Order: sequence, then structure tokens, then C-alpha cells
Amino acid sequence: MTLYKAPLDDQRFALFDVLGAETALTKLQGGDGHTRDLLDAVLEEAGRLSEQVLAPTNAPGDEEGCHYDKANRTVTTPKGFKEAFKQFAEGGWAGLTMAEEFGGQALPSVLGVATTELFQSGNLSWSLYPLLSEGACHALELHGTEDQKHIYLKPIVAGQWTGTMCLTEPQAGSDLGLLKTRAEPGANGSYKITGTKIFISAGDHDLAENIIHLVLARLPDAPAGSRGISMFIVPKFKVNGAGSVGERNNVYAGAIEHKMGIRGSATCVMNFDEAEGFLIGQPHKGLAAMFTMMNAARLSVGVQGLALAERAWQNSLNYARERLQSRSLSGAKFPDKPADNLLVQPDVRRMLLTQRAFVEGSRMLLLYAALQTDIEARGADEAQRQKASELLAFLIPIAKGLVTELAQECTKEALQVYGGHGFIVENGVEQFVRDARIITLYEGTTGIQAADLLGRKILQLKGVGLQHFLGEVGAFCKQHATDEALKPYIGPLGALAKEWGELTMKLAQRIQSNPEELGAAATDYLYYSGYITLAYFWARAVAALGQSTQQQAFKQAKRDAAAFYFARLLPRTHMHKAAIEAGIDTLPAIA
Amino acid sequence: MTLYKAPLDDQRFALFDVLGAETALTKLQGGDGHTRDLLDAVLEEAGRLSEQVLAPTNAPGDEEGCHYDKANRTVTTPKGFKEAFKQFAEGGWAGLTMAEEFGGQALPSVLGVATTELFQSGNLSWSLYPLLSEGACHALELHGTEDQKHIYLKPIVAGQWTGTMCLTEPQAGSDLGLLKTRAEPGANGSYKITGTKIFISAGDHDLAENIIHLVLARLPDAPAGSRGISMFIVPKFKVNGAGSVGERNNVYAGAIEHKMGIRGSATCVMNFDEAEGFLIGQPHKGLAAMFTMMNAARLSVGVQGLALAERAWQNSLNYARERLQSRSLSGAKFPDKPADNLLVQPDVRRMLLTQRAFVEGSRMLLLYAALQTDIEARGADEAQRQKASELLAFLIPIAKGLVTELAQECTKEALQVYGGHGFIVENGVEQFVRDARIITLYEGTTGIQAADLLGRKILQLKGVGLQHFLGEVGAFCKQHATDEALKPYIGPLGALAKEWGELTMKLAQRIQSNPEELGAAATDYLYYSGYITLAYFWARAVAALGQSTQQQAFKQAKRDAAAFYFARLLPRTHMHKAAIEAGIDTLPAIA
Repeated sequence: MTLYKAPLDDQRFALFDVLGAETALTKLQGGDGHTRDLLDAVLEEAGRLSEQVLAPTNAPGDEEGCHYDKANRTVTTPKGFKEAFKQFAEGGWAGLTMAEEFGGQALPSVLGVATTELFQSGNLSWSLYPLLSEGACHALELHGTEDQKHIYLKPIVAGQWTGTMCLTEPQAGSDLGLLKTRAEPGANGSYKITGTKIFISAGDHDLAENIIHLVLARLPDAPAGSRGISMFIVPKFKVNGAGSVGERNNVYAGAIEHKMGIRGSATCVMNFDEAEGFLIGQPHKGLAAMFTMMNAARLSVGVQGLALAERAWQNSLNYARERLQSRSLSGAKFPDKPADNLLVQPDVRRMLLTQRAFVEGSRMLLLYAALQTDIEARGADEAQRQKASELLAFLIPIAKGLVTELAQECTKEALQVYGGHGFIVENGVEQFVRDARIITLYEGTTGIQAADLLGRKILQLKGVGLQHFLGEVGAFCKQHATDEALKPYIGPLGALAKEWGELTMKLAQRIQSNPEELGAAATDYLYYSGYITLAYFWARAVAALGQSTQQQAFKQAKRDAAAFYFARLLPRTHMHKAAIEAGIDTLPAIA
Repeated sequence: MTLYKAPLDDQRFALFDVLGAETALTKLQGGDGHTRDLLDAVLEEAGRLSEQVLAPTNAPGDEEGCHYDKANRTVTTPKGFKEAFKQFAEGGWAGLTMAEEFGGQALPSVLGVATTELFQSGNLSWSLYPLLSEGACHALELHGTEDQKHIYLKPIVAGQWTGTMCLTEPQAGSDLGLLKTRAEPGANGSYKITGTKIFISAGDHDLAENIIHLVLARLPDAPAGSRGISMFIVPKFKVNGAGSVGERNNVYAGAIEHKMGIRGSATCVMNFDEAEGFLIGQPHKGLAAMFTMMNAARLSVGVQGLALAERAWQNSLNYARERLQSRSLSGAKFPDKPADNLLVQPDVRRMLLTQRAFVEGSRMLLLYAALQTDIEARGADEAQRQKASELLAFLIPIAKGLVTELAQECTKEALQVYGGHGFIVENGVEQFVRDARIITLYEGTTGIQAADLLGRKILQLKGVGLQHFLGEVGAFCKQHATDEALKPYIGPLGALAKEWGELTMKLAQRIQSNPEELGAAATDYLYYSGYITLAYFWARAVAALGQSTQQQAFKQAKRDAAAFYFARLLPRTHMHKAAIEAGIDTLPAIA
């Protein structure tokens, strides 16, 4: 069994000391009450729910998995999931960031992201059920009619119903333009939806009384490709006038997938057979509507990387502390014990500090991005909202792409600390490795994130987000130019920021003369950008220590992790730069 | 289901074109008949066995796993394992490299390594049963009395019995000095062995009629620590005078582990309760005796990395070729199909070439190391044997440490090429990721390999192996200084070889003043050394193309992979150098 303790201290440090979230949030429209005290109290409560209710279901849920009843075409979730969801709903968590008019609490998105981290650490598989609902809520709120919001959104916000996003089909994954599901006009303005969707998280389950599927499909007159896709609301049970659950709709789970990890999450094949659906948003604009939810969804998956890495890291640290094996290279450190613990080994500390530097660095990045979503939505003026929106768009592929990839490395290192014991299921750490393996795949693979960063955010949008970000980095370096504590960091950070800008310019020119150069550079450019981004946040962490009220041991650990990051991890930018510069000639055709 | 085709062309290229194995082997003592024709024929046969018999059992064996019968304390292997082992035994594979006097075929070790790769690709879990036998054979051959060889070695060589290595105990993993299993004098020169061993691969199974355990234990008068360990032969069934299997000995599997991967391999808890055993080798010299087998065992685990990565890479290449999704960045390449295949994406080619460069580079390194074991054993003169022995000792931690770590990356990238489909068990690629996760742990973790490389092979042995290797690299660079095809490679390789020597000198000095610096640098030094080592072999591959009779497409793919390796992977040395130079100050104590 694995332990889990909600990292509230580090969340507070990142939110309040590094990012100044209280000042920022209380200045926003409707942000008067969003004080540190309130946020703190919510985090405490979320931490308790995760530690006490979710975390204990994680390993048993993986062991048991979901069950598919072929006769009734229904899915049962593992023991404890239903009870946990009930507590979650009763605590009002399903509507934490949703508008008050639909029953939500209208709390800041950055708080939603912070609590989501805690829930995902507790049990990633379980957390996917509310996460998909959150996506559906955003879609309904942004694109639904007043009636649709009233009928479908409110019960999801209340945690009575859940939602799904039905995009992927067997032949249409990264390329949704290939999807075939059809929507034909039916009675009373409804549509008959027919087709097969795969990889549908929370497609069926026993946690709630109804499931609202948001389905991408083609109208009869739809043009081919991605411009002919519309979005439909397809409820599992039809909804009566009064909002009560009525007869069964013709959408059923046809199977659940047998997966490497997140086995407590029901990943369904969904068969729509003239299922009753309702158009949401404009005809043929479904993909664009889906993309309006993408920032939130991708940010959440980035947070999954943080959540898994955090829990894996806590456990590997604990194991290294408890496990007695061999002696220190410079002589016994615990001579009264049969052996020293693993912490005396510098190489074990290297593995632990790698995890810590990535985990805590990722947390700052993700919360910073989440804060931009609040500013984008409720900033005092248009200029502020616009800038936040552009910064966010730029940071999302980094937050998703980099953090999910780092989670592979972190969970791998966590397991490595355990030695052979890490490979044993009962010790629990191998589950984090298996669970983590999905997050670089869904919500857009790392390659898709990289193409989004370089192709869309840098080239199409002319690098406006990068300019904002480099502007911030520059201002920070200037502000701390003579700060003694930051001396080891400002120089390298400033130099890399300059290099980043120059490299981007040169790369953009190369891509203009050959579009294939985009694909040759994108993933390395994502990593390169990501490592510099984390360096900026680590420098900010050091800068924030002076005013922080955290304890001395906490502060020293931060300084150690920052120094480690700059000395031993940040030099990775060099190899990615070399790969970027190597270009398309190093990637010739493969027959 | 996953495909597998024995990579005989690439094995032949590495063996004969790059490494000149025929010339080298036929010059060795007893090597007259070891011609290319003979080796080719053996490889063909091994490939057939792997493709047709082993490969089909791989996924079903993982799904079914081993079964432990609590009442009888026996283990059953998955369906098909027993039949495969029978064919393996009948084909004489168990004694391929063993001496003729014990029933073996006395073929070269390098051929043993090449065939082992094929078997491990076919089914890694299954291959562990013969692999452990091979280790036991080496132990018996090197340390057993004539009687012991006659009684125990011959039936293992014949594939009638199998062997195990019983080292690890719950409190004694990397630190065998902590082991507690006791050996007390019994009747007729035997010993009564009592204790619990864990993680015993092939500890019990249904493949053979008897199992010979080689067990580390302490005699009553043993000094504490690693100098008080002796080795014992403990048969599952006692052996009668005539060599027939007699009464059951008191050693039983108490449980099998529930593991992340290699689920068809029985990983047993072995309980010895006054089991009858016989001392093998000298009292208190058991650890040293075990270490004489270590090169072979570690090389084999390195080969496991190659074997898993090879099969994963074959499948990801095939998937990228078959899967139609999206269009090329420079316009449709297959306009008559609904989408282009994944191969048109440069980023997918990057993932594929990363795998190819590591797989084929690792193969050259491993076969080169294996060739040194033949020269060490049967070289024409003492100087040649000595040099091979020193080169081998130096290369083993790189071959094991680097290749098993690269296998993590390769299998991960292979899965990534599949997108979300890679996460689905039925598609098979996720098993390679899970299976691979053990190989950086057993037979010495990567940290242990790194400490062996830097602490023992560089510092204690004064870098003699590195000097031999750098001498070879230098001679190669000189020989090809004006070779046009090698122009892009000789410069960088020569420069890195020089840097490697200098860095090693500086590092050795730093460690002399603080032994903790060893632990701070070791793993990064392993990677750094490993990437340069692979660069040397990739340069040799290019040099070998001129005389090779391989087809043009094969040669072009080699050139592409070499160019890719030098441009995009070799720059990783830079970050490892930075980490090495950062030193112990970046790894402060963790409370």
C-alpha cells in the first residue's frame, strides 16, 4: 500500500508566495471573497477527502477494475467508487468552479486545479469521472441554450448526473476529420445519432443516475473533413419535461477496454443506434466548440502528471528513508543499525531530487497557467484578459506535453528507488507507472501538443504568447539582477531566454521554406521550451523564499531543489537545441 | 497480438561485417569449425524456434501468468511453456555453449548471446527459465568438483533439469552482506540449509523433473558481512547415486510474486527448512564465486533490453506503416487513401529512428562484449586473453546499465507511436513496457552498474579497460581519418573520446578527495560513457558498409540511423557531463 499526504504546504507556497494568487484573485471581477483564508480552507477540505476517502480506493480499484455486464450492457465501478462520488457530490465539489446560477460555487479555476491535483493523487481512475463531467459542464455552459443549461447542466453541477465527451472512433483518433458518426433529423427538432465511439472515459458506470454524452457527429449535409462536424447532447436516459429521468435512450456501452493502467476508469466502446440527440451550438461547428474546452481539459491532464508524480515521489522518499541497505560511501552513517538507509546514497538522492524538482516545478507552472484562466475570464480590463488568454494558449501545450512526459520519468525513478521491490504489485508504486502511461496519449499526444505549440501558438499566432512570457522572464531577471540569493540563476535564465527567442526566430524561418521542418523540430522544441519555463518558476521560487512564512527546512529544501534543477536538469536544453537544429535532413523517409 | 521476425540480417551485419566475428572466432583455440556458415545455420534455427514456438506464447503467457498451488507448494507455468521448453531441450539449446564433456556443443559465447536475444524477443518470461539454468551451469562448471559436475551439471546441460540462483533475502538485496540464511553441518558431508530467499526466478515450475538451487548461506563460523558467505547446491529432489531423482528435499516455493510484468516467469519466495545441501567452492568464498558468473548474467540482462526493444520497435514500425491518420505537413502523400500513414510524420520517424539507433547500436555493443568473452576464454595467447578480460569487465556495466535503460525509452516510444491504442492490452505493446521495467532492477540496479563502472572498473582497476577501449577508438579514427563516408563521424567521435579521458581523470581526482563524489557522478558517467560507446559502434557500422553484401535499402537505413544518432542522440553527452561536473554539492542531505 502507498501513502499519500496532500501537499498543502507546497500548494500554498506556490499559490500565495510564488504566484501571489491572493492579490491577483481578489482584484478580479467577482473575486472579492477569494481570500487566502477561503482558499486555504477549501484546500484543507479537499486534502481530507483525498487522503481519507479517495487514496484508500486507489490500489484496490486497480486490482478489481471495472466490470462490464454483457447482458445488460452496463458497467460497474470498483468497490468504494460510488460512495466516494456521493461524498464528492454532497460536498459540492462537482460545482466548485461553476457559475452560481447553475448551482455552482463560482470559485476560481486555479483553486479547481489545485483541488483536482489532490483528487487525482488520491485516485486518478476515480477522478476521471468528475473530470469528464467538468468538461461537459464547460461545453454546456459555453454552447448550450438556456433550456439546455437548465435541463442538463444543473444536475451535473449538483453531482447527480455525469457527462462524457464522445470524440474518438476506431479510424479517427488524432485526426477527428475522419469521423463517421451520423446525425439525422428526427422528431421535434431532435436528431438520430448512429455510430461507434471508442475510448470513452466514464461512458457508462454506476455512480450517477444519468449520463449526458456530448457527441461529435456529421449532419446529412455536412462537408467532409473537420469542417463538417457538429456536437450533440445524447442523454443515457431521456429527460422528461420536469427534468426527471425518463426512458432509456439507445446508446449503450458495447464493451470496456482492458488497459495497462487506470483500470478503475471505465473506458467504453459506445454504440449509438439512432439514439435521440440534440444539436448544441452551430451546425458544422462542433470541432471548434470542442476546442473551446480544450485548454481546461489539457491543463487537467497536465495536472494528472503532477498528481501521479507527487504521490510516487512521496512514496519513494519514504522508502528511501525506511529501507536499510549498504553503507554510505564515506563510512557508516547509522553504525548502530545493520545498514544505512538509502538516503545516504548520492545516487538515490539524485533520483529523489529529480522527482522533487520536476514535481514542484510543474506545480508552479500548472497553477500559474490556471491563474491565467481566471484572469482571462474575469480580468479587470480587456487588455489584461487578452494577455492572459494569449499566455494561457501558449502555455497549455507545454503544461500538458511537458508535465505528462516528466511524469513518465518521475514515476519511473520513483519505482527505481524501490529496487526489485518496486516491481511487485503489492508495493503500489508500479501502478503509478502504469497509470501515468496514458497521459501522454489522451487529450492529444505529446506530438500533438508539440505541433500545437510550434505550429499554432508560435507560427500562426506569431509567437505573441512567447513574447508575453519572455517579457515576464526579462522583467523578473531585471528586478532581481542584484539579488544575491538569485545570482546563480538569473544569469543562466536570462541567457536561455535570449537563446529561446533567437532559436524560435531561426526555426520559424526554416519552417517557412519547408513545412516538414515543423514536424522535425516540434517535440524537441516543446521540451526545450518546457525546461526553460520550469527554470523561470524555480528562480521565482527562490525569489519568493525571502518573504515566505514557511519553515526553515521547507525553505532549504526549495533552495536545494532549485540548485539541483539548474545544475543537473536544465542542461538538457542543450541536447534539444542540437536536435532542433539538426532539422528534417536527419529524419529521412522510412519505407 | 504482436508480430516478431528474427532480425537475422542485422545480427549477421553486426557479427560478420562490423565485428569480423568469423575471422576472430576461427582463430581462437578450438575455433576451427566456427565458420560463418555454421553460425548462420544456428541463428536460422534459433530464429525459427523463437518465431514459431516462443513468440506466440508471449501475450497469452502474460495474460495467464504462473499459478501457485498452495496445498502442494508447486508452481505451474502458462500454457505452452512446457512444450516450448521440451523443444528447446531436444534442440540441444540448453548446452549450446557448454563444454562437450558435459554434453554441450561448445559453440562460441557470442553465438549464445545472439540466440539468447532471439529467444528473449520471443518470450522474455519463458527465456528466464533457461537463463537461470545457464547461470547455474557456469557456477557448477567453474566451482564444482568433478562429482558435482557429473551429477548436477550434465542433466542441466541436457535440458532435463534446470537451475536457480538463490541470493536475495527480504533484508538483503543490493547488500548481500546482510543475508542470514544458515548452513549447518549435516550427515555425510552435507549441510542443512535454513532460511528464506525472495525474488527467485524459476524457483519452482513444471518444465523439468528437477531443479538445482545454488544458494548463498552462512556457515556457523562465518564472519559477518559479505566475507562470510558460502555457496551451496540444494536440489529440489535429492539425487540418488546413479543420478536418478530421489526423495523430495525440504525446499519449497512459499509463494509467487504478483508482478508488473514478466508474469509468465515464476518469481518465488523459497523456503529452506534444513534442506540438504552441499558446499560448492571454498567456505566463505561464495560471493566471489557468484561474482565469477556475473559478467555472463549481466550481459544477458543487457540482451533482454535489446530483445524487448527490438520486438517493440518492429511492432511500432509496422503500426506506423499501417495506421492511416492525418496528412503530411507538405500535402497528402497518399491522396487516394482517406489519410496518410503515420510514417509521413517527421515526429513519428523521430520516435522510430530513436528506437532503431538504440536497438542496432546496442546489438553491436552487446555482441562485441560477447566476443570478448570468447577471446577471454580461448584467445591464442595470454596477452590477448588478458586484454579481452579487461575490456569485458569495463564494458559489462555499460552493456547492462545503458542498454536496459535505453530499453525503457525504446519501449516507451514504441507505445507512444500507437497513440491511445498502445495503452490497450490486446495490442500487445504495453507488455513490452511492463516487462522491460524489471531489467534495470535485477542483476544489479542501474545505480549498482554505475558504481561498478566508476568505482571498480575505472578507479580500482585504474581504468585499464577504458584505456584499451579508447585505444581502439583512437586506432579506428586514425584508420578512417580520410574516409569520406566517415567524415561526419570521425571528428565528433575523436573529440568525445578525448573529452571522455580527460573528464575521467578529473573525476578520479575529485573522488580521491571525497568518496561521496563517486555516488554523485556514477549514473551520469555511465550514460555519458555509454552514449560515446554507441557512437563508436555506429561509426564502425558505417565503416563496414563498403564491404558488406547487404542490400542497398539495408545500407541506406544504416546510414540514416547513424546520422540520426550522431545529430540527435549523441548530444546527450553534454547534459551528463554537466551533471558529472556539478558534483556532490548539488546532492545535499535529505532528512
